[in-house]
Amino acid sequence: MKLISYHEGGKARYGIQNGDGVIDASARLGPEFPTLKDAMVGGMDQLHSLAGEAADVAQGTIKYDLPIPNADKILCAGRNYRAYHEVIDAGGPLQFPSIFGRLASSFVPHGGAVINPREGENLDYEGELVVVIGKRGRSITEENAMDHVAGYTIMDEGTLRDWGKKGTQNMPSKNFYHSGAIGPWIVTADEIADPMKLHITTRRNGEVVQDGGTDLMIFDIKFLISHASKFTWLEPGDMIATGSPGGTIAGSDKKIWLSAGETLEVEISDVGTLSVTIEDEE
Amino acid sequence: MKLISYHEGGKARYGIQNGDGVIDASARLGPEFPTLKDAMVGGMDQLHSLAGEAADVAQGTIKYDLPIPNADKILCAGRNYRAYHEVIDAGGPLQFPSIFGRLASSFVPHGGAVINPREGENLDYEGELVVVIGKRGRSITEENAMDHVAGYTIMDEGTLRDWGKKGTQNMPSKNFYHSGAIGPWIVTADEIADPMKLHITTRRNGEVVQDGGTDLMIFDIKFLISHASKFTWLEPGDMIATGSPGGTIAGSDKKIWLSAGETLEVEISDVGTLSVTIEDEE
Repeated sequence: MKLISYHEGGKARYGIQNGDGVIDASARLGPEFPTLKDAMVGGMDQLHSLAGEAADVAQGTIKYDLPIPNADKILCAGRNYRAYHEVIDAGGPLQFPSIFGRLASSFVPHGGAVINPREGENLDYEGELVVVIGKRGRSITEENAMDHVAGYTIMDEGTLRDWGKKGTQNMPSKNFYHSGAIGPWIVTADEIADPMKLHITTRRNGEVVQDGGTDLMIFDIKFLISHASKFTWLEPGDMIATGSPGGTIAGSDKKIWLSAGETLEVEISDVGTLSVTIEDEE
Repeated sequence: MKLISYHEGGKARYGIQNGDGVIDASARLGPEFPTLKDAMVGGMDQLHSLAGEAADVAQGTIKYDLPIPNADKILCAGRNYRAYHEVIDAGGPLQFPSIFGRLASSFVPHGGAVINPREGENLDYEGELVVVIGKRGRSITEENAMDHVAGYTIMDEGTLRDWGKKGTQNMPSKNFYHSGAIGPWIVTADEIADPMKLHITTRRNGEVVQDGGTDLMIFDIKFLISHASKFTWLEPGDMIATGSPGGTIAGSDKKIWLSAGETLEVEISDVGTLSVTIEDEE
């Protein structure tokens, strides 16, 4: 099942993507579940029972929102892929993942325009698998970690590399307004046999630039969930981006940064494809 | 004028603190302004006109909430005081402030219990002046920065020092659930002649442990507002914590970390005093 949040006729809705259209689950579940996040807490059975029905709206009439527009938090693991690590950092693998937060306003939905900002010069992409939390938890053991996963989505964890050198923290370089993307949907966990055996392919203007398996993660999904839950309550709708394989612009020889008019696609096997264009800031 | 968010009789309210009680501004402004954040956008004149009235509720009947419970973001500047810097870091002052984010869930309100967590061992305090944004803005110049300030509040930017060494980012060490505090109120900007000439005093069990002027900031308030607005939209209710003077436990010889039963007060001249106790995690 592919869960989406979207706008149709100017209204915020959520639903289930099914091939040629969308089942308007927000209409079916009603005001008890005003957002997809609410539905994921108490209405997952109802969502599953709707999944076989005919679409209510045609694909062309909807505009994607972020899968969870009202996520309590979006955590990201930095430098979490062996290939990436080997390129970026000669100091050897980290003992712990580097966890930072991103604001929802730093992302655009599937089909949106990532903004190349006035104030930053080195806009880079990072294709990543995102874990979406379905069940609240704290101090979650690695053994129980997968019970807290509702599903998976895709992120371009877009970064302004020049800002990574300003101050000691990467929060600013990773939080430029509309510098990344999440979407198009959340594939529910029951459809992913093993999230550590997926394949991430990032294409820049159609050309493959990142190409790596999730088996290259240094800290796996169970560890990341357990680790994050040691300091914060993981809430339904929370996202954990799991890091990016090699092939970013920062790791390339030529370092030709993203600019207006380019297209970016991040495809993850069994999950889908996130597509955006790049625009200059007005 | 001192603006607060609070609970009374089980209901979330906001109002104006006036000596012996609280003016229930949420009742006066009505449903058009459901939260203090909303009132700060369109109802500041109405709030000012209420400030002289008699209190609606006695002080003893209210329970403080975070001043802005629904802040879009809470940004913090790390290592931003000369004294602090000299103790912690021998490498010389930073070229740029170190900006990171904190989740609202990492704070308790005035009068609350900061949690010494199971999973962290080195709970430290950091008394800080917090700027509260009143007007939305992006790419704000230093010249215009103060026009975007609604007022000031106080933070214990509580930190788990042992977690600062796990990974390269300080997000986890700075985001333990209920590890810090904000409050009690927002003093409106018209009551602060010069926020760069305030005095911060932190008391641990009554003993002064931090004692420094805001004139010791390396990057001043105007710079911090301008800098943050280069990467993100600053929204009404957003907070920017401006860093802590010397005197933290991390910088002391004995390093006796906070533990259950201790009390902590952060007093800032012309702003007020934030008081919390420390409790062990259950």
